[in-house]
Amino acid sequence: QKRTALEKIRELFIYNSLTNKKEVFRPVKAGYVGMYVCGPTVYSNVHLGNVRTFMSFDMVFRYLLHLGYKVRYVRNITDAGHLTEDSEEDKISTKARLEQLEPMEIVQKYTIDFHHILEKFNNLPPSIEPTATGHILEQIQAIETILENGLAYIVNGSVYFDVLKYNENEHYGILSKRKIEDAIENTRSLDGQSDKRNPQDFALWKRAEPEHIQRWNSPWGIGFPGWHLECSVMSTKYLGEEFDIHGGGMDLKFPHHECEIAQAQACNHVAPVRYWMHGNMLTMNGKKMSKSTGNNILPEEIFSGNNANISKAFAPSVARFFMMQAHYRSVLDFSNDAMLAAEKGYSRLMEAMNLLPELKASEGSSVDPERWREDCYVAMSDDFNTPILIAHLFEAVKWINLIKEGKETISASDKELLEETMKVFVYDVLGLENAMSGSDNSEKLDAVVEVLIGLREQARADKNWALSDQIRDDLAAQGIQLKDGKDGTSYSLT
Amino acid sequence: QKRTALEKIRELFIYNSLTNKKEVFRPVKAGYVGMYVCGPTVYSNVHLGNVRTFMSFDMVFRYLLHLGYKVRYVRNITDAGHLTEDSEEDKISTKARLEQLEPMEIVQKYTIDFHHILEKFNNLPPSIEPTATGHILEQIQAIETILENGLAYIVNGSVYFDVLKYNENEHYGILSKRKIEDAIENTRSLDGQSDKRNPQDFALWKRAEPEHIQRWNSPWGIGFPGWHLECSVMSTKYLGEEFDIHGGGMDLKFPHHECEIAQAQACNHVAPVRYWMHGNMLTMNGKKMSKSTGNNILPEEIFSGNNANISKAFAPSVARFFMMQAHYRSVLDFSNDAMLAAEKGYSRLMEAMNLLPELKASEGSSVDPERWREDCYVAMSDDFNTPILIAHLFEAVKWINLIKEGKETISASDKELLEETMKVFVYDVLGLENAMSGSDNSEKLDAVVEVLIGLREQARADKNWALSDQIRDDLAAQGIQLKDGKDGTSYSLT
Repeated sequence: QKRTALEKIRELFIYNSLTNKKEVFRPVKAGYVGMYVCGPTVYSNVHLGNVRTFMSFDMVFRYLLHLGYKVRYVRNITDAGHLTEDSEEDKISTKARLEQLEPMEIVQKYTIDFHHILEKFNNLPPSIEPTATGHILEQIQAIETILENGLAYIVNGSVYFDVLKYNENEHYGILSKRKIEDAIENTRSLDGQSDKRNPQDFALWKRAEPEHIQRWNSPWGIGFPGWHLECSVMSTKYLGEEFDIHGGGMDLKFPHHECEIAQAQACNHVAPVRYWMHGNMLTMNGKKMSKSTGNNILPEEIFSGNNANISKAFAPSVARFFMMQAHYRSVLDFSNDAMLAAEKGYSRLMEAMNLLPELKASEGSSVDPERWREDCYVAMSDDFNTPILIAHLFEAVKWINLIKEGKETISASDKELLEETMKVFVYDVLGLENAMSGSDNSEKLDAVVEVLIGLREQARADKNWALSDQIRDDLAAQGIQLKDGKDGTSYSLT
Repeated sequence: QKRTALEKIRELFIYNSLTNKKEVFRPVKAGYVGMYVCGPTVYSNVHLGNVRTFMSFDMVFRYLLHLGYKVRYVRNITDAGHLTEDSEEDKISTKARLEQLEPMEIVQKYTIDFHHILEKFNNLPPSIEPTATGHILEQIQAIETILENGLAYIVNGSVYFDVLKYNENEHYGILSKRKIEDAIENTRSLDGQSDKRNPQDFALWKRAEPEHIQRWNSPWGIGFPGWHLECSVMSTKYLGEEFDIHGGGMDLKFPHHECEIAQAQACNHVAPVRYWMHGNMLTMNGKKMSKSTGNNILPEEIFSGNNANISKAFAPSVARFFMMQAHYRSVLDFSNDAMLAAEKGYSRLMEAMNLLPELKASEGSSVDPERWREDCYVAMSDDFNTPILIAHLFEAVKWINLIKEGKETISASDKELLEETMKVFVYDVLGLENAMSGSDNSEKLDAVVEVLIGLREQARADKNWALSDQIRDDLAAQGIQLKDGKDGTSYSLT
């Protein structure tokens, strides 16, 4: 009977951006989940806001797997873009092939970078990682279907989706809750030479101007696919015409996801996605992240400490813990203080994880891990509420420390339940790694450097400048730079 | 003038499988190298023989880069295969999309595995890693061109290359040195229902039978490309119609590379490759590696030691050193004894690398690193002769140990030359990693703990017992135990 209660509690609720409501999750095919998440554009380094989105859906993927679903998780790589030649000198016609800029070299560089970053954050690889360039033929076929269905038109070698026509029978704006009239007003033509009949129409296929490097043959001439199309085509190919979950950052809701719905409806006459999920933004020091103002940090810089916005290096698991402390639908603000606090919380959690196997079992329990476990499932099954889950985990941390001190007791079977459940949620579901049982020594290194910083502060308080300088120089000789600031001393690794 | 001598010595000779001769390397475009290597089929784990081939061409890539060439290195992923449904139950028509076997899931699994293995062996990623499924459109276009040129024919939705017709004006067998008559005799039809006119013809496009899972639309109906075609199409797309180096395992010479030449000639009327390079086989215990007899080892099993053919685990760099001890064109035999010997050699080399910076410089040199450096270049420029190079490196190891013992001398400038050259060949060209100096934070941790031990010794010399005790206690709180002994203070991590 307990088991049934647990099953019921595990009934999963997902906030559906399509209805703006939490709904019980009912997959198309019982036991299976098809999930599609919009992946990165690999023409530059992935930024931390994107990393947050991918980490959120990694957590969703992990929880669905834990619940026993057979999940096919598709996350695409956008490698067909709008790369153009920089200048007259880049002209393809005047250069040998090997001298030309090759977009696929850029794609390779940033795809490798992207994979390394996500791996450091302990994200699981998706089940399939299809590329836009790998599905040109399928995209051409989809355009042919949309043309046949009368919902697109050809102009000068480009093909556009006819939004007004589509809106006669369907609802363009169903996801973003925009009225078609607003969409028209808010859409301005970015390209003066656009061939669109109406400004809200969007390209399915674009004619390649001479300066466009990526180009393919098509029934409409040489060109490249519009950006919105690849996701429709690849999600349909690998997940079917109707699938369960589509995720992405909030900024993709309009126009990207709105266009995906329209394209899929125009091709297959069915709403493609049951549950639309959107992750929220990451800000920094209370403001939008921006390269130009310096209010910005690259994932790699978190690991190295090599950024003016942080005082020290942080382990990837600390950054992951930091992100999991917020709900995926809440705005999250990155700051040095928040990271220092996350580091403390993470350390407390991992110390408890390391303590747990050593606890002595008693005859009976003064704590109730079974009820607590149900609370954990309730939190996660309530639209993946990781902050509430983490609050529950810290209840267990408190228990663990009190049991250690002899102030609470736990029976052998309850201890087993507690240990098993903690492992499930900390490692499997939240995807945290235990750096403190540590294979890479970075936590220890950090602690030892802090010991030296403490000694140096003491030396300075004693006006022992010789010792203070010696510590700074000895560390510099090992590639560790101390930086004295208003809020104390920080360091970076070189 | 010395510089000119060195330049001359660096003149590179490559054994060309097309002419069976060593030839001076003259790239199509001075300063640039286009290199294509046939990559893995990602429907199963990569085997050690393949790893050897990829490692050999990684070494070639590294040496070309060191010589200052701008290298575009393309290595493909074969992900369009012949996967068929296992049984009646697998019938696509009767199943929901998510229940079906999805080839791209298998591709994803084994591509990730492949990348991890090659990364462990410290292979550099190629400049571009194109996939067969990513170039279906280009393959269809190539087939259209070959058809237009009258060198292929269509039968029942399949397209075959007409080898006899091609051989009227070109030489089918130019690479493998086969006569067309022999080719006919040696080629038997694997498929009883083949539509080929002649047995030596090969498929450019195959009609997909109902049980074929991977399938694309084409002008000839639904099907999939023949295996030989992808390499022709992708090498041409990224390297041009005529490029410098094409590499692969010896087993690919016929029919795969022979077919590549024919296809490229049929499309572009030019010999596609200037230098064909073929790596030799890896055997085990003197016999062919074979899964069924157990005379086999997976790369992962080398690192874990989890295989009956080896007595212990070996580091990836030891395996790499083992492979580099043989010339890429020689058969190499893997055995436990050979690996144990390689481990000894590798350790001696790395010990010398670690000793080198600490050597004391003298007024003059009793050794001649400048001549020795020239020998190193001569070896590598003689068709990448890594075993001879390694023999020279061990000459330097001998010097390093004798200089340390005071039995030879080295001047400051010669020491710098020796150190720089050793780093170039050991790390950059052979791609060996110094496992003995550690790439995680353990080295830095060690250095910082040593800083603290030094401060503590100083404090004790100053009879500052409070500071000395504080350092010991602070470290103990971080799980680092200091132990004072006769030879100074050591530490251990808990």
